[in-house]
Amino acid sequence: MPHRVEISTKKVGLAPGHAVFTGERRLESAQISWVRYRLDAVERGDAPTAADIPLPDPTGTNTLWVNVDGLHDVELVKAVGERFGMHPLSIEDVVSVAGRPVAETYDDSVFTTLKMLMLSEDGSVLSDHTSIVFGPGWVLSFQETPGDVFGNLRRRIGDPTARVRARGADYLWYALVDSVVDHYALVLSTIGARIEELEEEVWGEDPGRDLALRAQDARHQLLLVRRAVRPLREQLGLLTGDCPALITAQTEPYLSDLETHLAHHSDSIDHLRDTITSLLEAHVSILTMRANEVMRVLTVVASIFIPMTFVASVYGMNFVYMPELGHPWGYEITWAVMLGSGISMLVYFWRKHWL
Amino acid sequence: MPHRVEISTKKVGLAPGHAVFTGERRLESAQISWVRYRLDAVERGDAPTAADIPLPDPTGTNTLWVNVDGLHDVELVKAVGERFGMHPLSIEDVVSVAGRPVAETYDDSVFTTLKMLMLSEDGSVLSDHTSIVFGPGWVLSFQETPGDVFGNLRRRIGDPTARVRARGADYLWYALVDSVVDHYALVLSTIGARIEELEEEVWGEDPGRDLALRAQDARHQLLLVRRAVRPLREQLGLLTGDCPALITAQTEPYLSDLETHLAHHSDSIDHLRDTITSLLEAHVSILTMRANEVMRVLTVVASIFIPMTFVASVYGMNFVYMPELGHPWGYEITWAVMLGSGISMLVYFWRKHWL
Amino acid sequence: MPHRVEISTKKVGLAPGHAVFTGERRLESAQISWVRYRLDAVERGDAPTAADIPLPDPTGTNTLWVNVDGLHDVELVKAVGERFGMHPLSIEDVVSVAGRPVAETYDDSVFTTLKMLMLSEDGSVLSDHTSIVFGPGWVLSFQETPGDVFGNLRRRIGDPTARVRARGADYLWYALVDSVVDHYALVLSTIGARIEELEEEVWGEDPGRDLALRAQDARHQLLLVRRAVRPLREQLGLLTGDCPALITAQTEPYLSDLETHLAHHSDSIDHLRDTITSLLEAHVSILTMRANEVMRVLTVVASIFIPMTFVASVYGMNFVYMPELGHPWGYEITWAVMLGSGISMLVYFWRKHWL
Amino acid sequence: MPHRVEISTKKVGLAPGHAVFTGERRLESAQISWVRYRLDAVERGDAPTAADIPLPDPTGTNTLWVNVDGLHDVELVKAVGERFGMHPLSIEDVVSVAGRPVAETYDDSVFTTLKMLMLSEDGSVLSDHTSIVFGPGWVLSFQETPGDVFGNLRRRIGDPTARVRARGADYLWYALVDSVVDHYALVLSTIGARIEELEEEVWGEDPGRDLALRAQDARHQLLLVRRAVRPLREQLGLLTGDCPALITAQTEPYLSDLETHLAHHSDSIDHLRDTITSLLEAHVSILTMRANEVMRVLTVVASIFIPMTFVASVYGMNFVYMPELGHPWGYEITWAVMLGSGISMLVYFWRKHWL
Amino acid sequence: MPHRVEISTKKVGLAPGHAVFTGERRLESAQISWVRYRLDAVERGDAPTAADIPLPDPTGTNTLWVNVDGLHDVELVKAVGERFGMHPLSIEDVVSVAGRPVAETYDDSVFTTLKMLMLSEDGSVLSDHTSIVFGPGWVLSFQETPGDVFGNLRRRIGDPTARVRARGADYLWYALVDSVVDHYALVLSTIGARIEELEEEVWGEDPGRDLALRAQDARHQLLLVRRAVRPLREQLGLLTGDCPALITAQTEPYLSDLETHLAHHSDSIDHLRDTITSLLEAHVSILTMRANEVMRVLTVVASIFIPMTFVASVYGMNFVYMPELGHPWGYEITWAVMLGSGISMLVYFWRKHWL
Repeated sequence: MPHRVEISTKKVGLAPGHAVFTGERRLESAQISWVRYRLDAVERGDAPTAADIPLPDPTGTNTLWVNVDGLHDVELVKAVGERFGMHPLSIEDVVSVAGRPVAETYDDSVFTTLKMLMLSEDGSVLSDHTSIVFGPGWVLSFQETPGDVFGNLRRRIGDPTARVRARGADYLWYALVDSVVDHYALVLSTIGARIEELEEEVWGEDPGRDLALRAQDARHQLLLVRRAVRPLREQLGLLTGDCPALITAQTEPYLSDLETHLAHHSDSIDHLRDTITSLLEAHVSILTMRANEVMRVLTVVASIFIPMTFVASVYGMNFVYMPELGHPWGYEITWAVMLGSGISMLVYFWRKHWL
Repeated sequence: MPHRVEISTKKVGLAPGHAVFTGERRLESAQISWVRYRLDAVERGDAPTAADIPLPDPTGTNTLWVNVDGLHDVELVKAVGERFGMHPLSIEDVVSVAGRPVAETYDDSVFTTLKMLMLSEDGSVLSDHTSIVFGPGWVLSFQETPGDVFGNLRRRIGDPTARVRARGADYLWYALVDSVVDHYALVLSTIGARIEELEEEVWGEDPGRDLALRAQDARHQLLLVRRAVRPLREQLGLLTGDCPALITAQTEPYLSDLETHLAHHSDSIDHLRDTITSLLEAHVSILTMRANEVMRVLTVVASIFIPMTFVASVYGMNFVYMPELGHPWGYEITWAVMLGSGISMLVYFWRKHWL
Repeated sequence: MPHRVEISTKKVGLAPGHAVFTGERRLESAQISWVRYRLDAVERGDAPTAADIPLPDPTGTNTLWVNVDGLHDVELVKAVGERFGMHPLSIEDVVSVAGRPVAETYDDSVFTTLKMLMLSEDGSVLSDHTSIVFGPGWVLSFQETPGDVFGNLRRRIGDPTARVRARGADYLWYALVDSVVDHYALVLSTIGARIEELEEEVWGEDPGRDLALRAQDARHQLLLVRRAVRPLREQLGLLTGDCPALITAQTEPYLSDLETHLAHHSDSIDHLRDTITSLLEAHVSILTMRANEVMRVLTVVASIFIPMTFVASVYGMNFVYMPELGHPWGYEITWAVMLGSGISMLVYFWRKHWL
Repeated sequence: MPHRVEISTKKVGLAPGHAVFTGERRLESAQISWVRYRLDAVERGDAPTAADIPLPDPTGTNTLWVNVDGLHDVELVKAVGERFGMHPLSIEDVVSVAGRPVAETYDDSVFTTLKMLMLSEDGSVLSDHTSIVFGPGWVLSFQETPGDVFGNLRRRIGDPTARVRARGADYLWYALVDSVVDHYALVLSTIGARIEELEEEVWGEDPGRDLALRAQDARHQLLLVRRAVRPLREQLGLLTGDCPALITAQTEPYLSDLETHLAHHSDSIDHLRDTITSLLEAHVSILTMRANEVMRVLTVVASIFIPMTFVASVYGMNFVYMPELGHPWGYEITWAVMLGSGISMLVYFWRKHWL
Repeated sequence: MPHRVEISTKKVGLAPGHAVFTGERRLESAQISWVRYRLDAVERGDAPTAADIPLPDPTGTNTLWVNVDGLHDVELVKAVGERFGMHPLSIEDVVSVAGRPVAETYDDSVFTTLKMLMLSEDGSVLSDHTSIVFGPGWVLSFQETPGDVFGNLRRRIGDPTARVRARGADYLWYALVDSVVDHYALVLSTIGARIEELEEEVWGEDPGRDLALRAQDARHQLLLVRRAVRPLREQLGLLTGDCPALITAQTEPYLSDLETHLAHHSDSIDHLRDTITSLLEAHVSILTMRANEVMRVLTVVASIFIPMTFVASVYGMNFVYMPELGHPWGYEITWAVMLGSGISMLVYFWRKHWL
């Protein structure tokens, strides 16, 4: 069960800002959908090409959210990005799925990439690259993930009383990031439950032979989560440190709440890692204790019977002249000697607490 | 004895600021009690609903303390919070019992959540989520803990000479936080005593088979305490770094004293963790030393008697022509050979310091 | 397979700023080539001596890139460096191939040294010292590496539509650094693949005896990469912290992108190191488990047969008076005793889960 | 030899600033002594009560040093503290002997608590809580330590040429802190010598069974010293960071010298801890090597003689028809077979370097 | 081979600023030599007493370098220091040879102490305390080291074309510090070579029994180097952070170059420490693997022959009635049983890959 570390080499030798999709294609075809809403109206639509996306309305009250599913269609991503004036390096980051979470401020937009974490059916952690950008009146989201991960948010936008309807693009951007971060809790909790089971097993009667393997596996899953959480926390911290003008004062408390969640996840990761380390240490110390017990049994049995067998062997010798053999009590005395040796060994071991 | 890491997943997919109780209900029903005091008067009362709570008096000399027992009644918590103008995110944090300690400054209030630590009857550490908020002239406290943890403070308020009577809401807030932090010392001291016992046992005659298990358990308890202490220290440090106007100069030295206490607890946690690590290392090295001893006994016994037994076996053979068997001194010489081999082994082992 | 840490001692006792080549000569002879380009024109040439290099044109639109292959020719390096007004300490750093990556700002130039990493044919990592300097209108690059590592960039300069043609010396300097950093991904990905193979092997049927050796070797390669990545990241961070005037606002986002790449590489190194540590821990724990199994087999076999052999030895004794020998059921009873002892041992081991 | 971590629980539930003595009474009765000096005069005296202490002279040239022995007399400490206008929290810190070293600046005084370290007769480290406060023209010192730890300083004050006579209260405060810090060197040097002995023993012929115990003990002593040194260094650093007006420019270099000493002690602690870790690792690896040797001897002896014994046993069988038994060379051939098996084993082991 | 950590206790109880020589006297007698130079002239001389040293010339172009060999002559050091207006604490630091490297700025001088590292003949690292001070127009150096460590510099001063001749006291101070730091490379490279040899040995046929001892020894040497490098780097960093006026802009790049060298040495130390840790881990894992092999041989041999011997013992019994003994094929069948048991064991072991 080897663990792949995502390091992409597809782009070596290319010019910087040259966008190449470095991941695995998961969707049949790319597609663009958009939602435009204000407090009292919602409009939705699909856009076959980038040119069909409605233009944002920076001064008005409408917020436009454009979602692009399918990073493998690099040309489409580029067209959408250029329509909204994204920097070539940002477009490159959108499709470089092995990249690190970043949060960057440009003059008229804020660009973030983050990792959507999901659990596959066999329990391993899948990490999907997601990018979320916003500017005045618009939000772009890019992903290669099958299924509608932002479905809940889409439903909330449909609800006229939802807070998101009353706020602008910065709040929508926050809400998208927040729904990704919320999933981290799910993944961490599943890993936590698995570690709990391992802990129960390690102290149990008959720990499986592959316990160490499964513990390492859980540790690896944690490393993946950490690679999603740590840089995001660091980057969001930098972002809110010199808070860009695009983020309104109303949204700031939400961002700081998000940072608290990430800090909490980070603590949980450390906690779970510590637990795994303890668990493996305990496993080794239990194995050692069992080995000692095995050894002790061998030592006790062999140390008792080997000397006795020696005595018996002596009187099995066929020398013509062996006075003891003819002695009337010879056999009984020999038994006494043998039992004496065995019992003194037993006493010795009993005193040493080896029995 | 698996250890659960608190990671709540109940809120995945919900809108931010949507308050959900993520803990375990411990109280029959929620209840609100209040105390209003100034230097020369104290009034007390219970409030069936949030609307029955007296209004605070920001400009006057009265301080109002409202205590809400029962986080599970989310509606009640919300009603109380809204009456005092708390931010929706703060209300969410009050009932998210798996959350991380935070200390946040709003324009007209300071919001803190922290972990009340208690020892259960079987010696494990219980962590309860407590929130304490204050604004001009009022303090709110929220908890799900059975028993009156703030009882001492309640008594002090009854005493006209107590310092708390002469001070405002910021001091009361400090005093509430301080009484939670004081309990940490109790928990740490109990864990410390348990570790001390383990240390005595590890060097003793017959350490229990589950010693490593109990040591890991103590380590886990420490991790829980650390999860309460570290973030609180960090958050209070940030709070006092740019000290909000709500905290008067008179209260500041008390806060810095609180931070010193938390730093001291943090040191103690590190110290105890180091002690557990040493203890487990010592345990493994003692186990190894014992295994070596077991092995040495086996080696000495087997190495002495196996060659002797071989000699005896040789003269137990039934060959028709074996000249030694008829030799007049054959038996004696054989004994001499056997003893010689045994004694030379003994000398060898004695020289190697294995006896 | 000992690993050499590059610490040069050739320069002890020399005056600071005294340039000495501290590496291994890899090229036959040094040579200088140059390219001068602007948006609509490219000129190329070789320069036999430093004096033949065209002069840069600080105020114009031309950018001059001079590449020096062959650090061993210290006099040539010095002549070129002096022609472009480099500080004696920088010239010393160019030829001190054991030096640490640095990025320094002078009044009219920015000086960087970095490590070009390549994979040798036997899979080990080679680290080559490369220096890149730029000032207004000119870029100098120095290397001792055979092969044309900057070949891709050279081709891009030939292409009139390439972004590099439209930008100045600062962008070219960035592009050179970027093509070195891009190679790090290649090296890390190869090391990652090797670690993956080791992981598969460690959990496999018959891990090679030299697995630990190969794991340590991979760890060592990682240390080499870390020595290239960490200081470069730190130095570039300092450089962009107080961004020198020579770097235009247009190039700044590219630099921050470069830092993100380095941060990502740094994360990957940590991740791979963690993986190796886990792998080696797993290896030791598997070895211990196997040793326990070996021990268990020995204990089971010996504990069953040694007592039985003792019984048989007893009745092999030749005493004249041994009543059991004449007993009609003696032989059968003896077998019963022996089998009884063996079977009770089996039951004991079965109960202990040792079978 | 369990190690107690000082965590006081006596104060849980009390109001902050409520002074309680949390230590062990070491002195019969408390007593106050004072010294008042200027360049040309020294006066000394004892004060039965706080009211008998002479008043300080903030504007004049006299410096008053009041020393209180006996923290257990909380009322006396309180009376003295109040006479000099100390903050209630500081008075609480004076008698909370389990507290952490602090250095705090008030408007008109600087308050420090630190740990006086001493070696008990059985070589363990004793930590005593000492507080030193100064304001304009006065210094207070509080301790529970028997013996006159500030004796040297008292003598220096008696000497008209001593530097302390020419300086003010800030220098006296520094000199008191410095004489405590000087003792740390003594303690560290003793622990260092003990570790040196352990190192000699671990590589010696016959390391004691309790070596690991003594190493852990030394590690524990170091932890105690670290708990005294680290917070003091941190707190003094904060103090000198924004240097209070009470500390004159003349005294500042002395404080920075003090910090260097503390940094040096901190380095030494790290160094000694590293040494202990190395020592214990070496101990385990030596134990493992010895176990391997024991195992090798057993394997060699048993593997040589067990097959030989088997051969001998075969010809000890009593079958009526065993052709070899009657063979004229049967006995000699059997010996040849036995020796051949033994010698081939020897050769095998010799080739494997196990002999 | 115990390792002494330098902690001096000679000064406990003395007044601060009281200079005491805390080292080991290595020179017969102290002596003062001086050099005065400007671009076009050099003068040299010896000074029997401090009063014979020429006075510096702060406004002129002469630079005066005074070197004092022999820290044990505290009076001489004091006289020289006072002649140049050094602070009493600095004079104390000059002769406190166990002190930590410091770099301090006074109004009219910069004071540095550092550790000169040398290799003794048996390969261990010697650390010598050296102090270098400079003010306008003068440099003082103090040492207790036999041999002329600054000889190279002395020769360079004799050379009219050397850079040092054209620069002032700050450059000379830098050059002195630099020649000490250059020696660190020598020491690190020697330790590196030793570690390389250990690495070759650990994977070799027959690693020496004291390999772990030698590895720990190398680790200890590294700790000594780290104690010289780390604080110096930190202190120089602080010094150049707020660069004192005494250091000219011309010298600043040299100082930053020096810091890069120290950073490089610091990296090398970390690298070498990592290598030693890997090496020791590998050593333990190889020892474990060998132990497993030894165990396997014992298990295979014993498990094959012990059951066979049991069978032979059975038919060595002397019961009167043992039907098998008279059976015509009894002997052959017994052999078949014995061989069958042995071969089935062999198959079992072969299947488990233990052969």
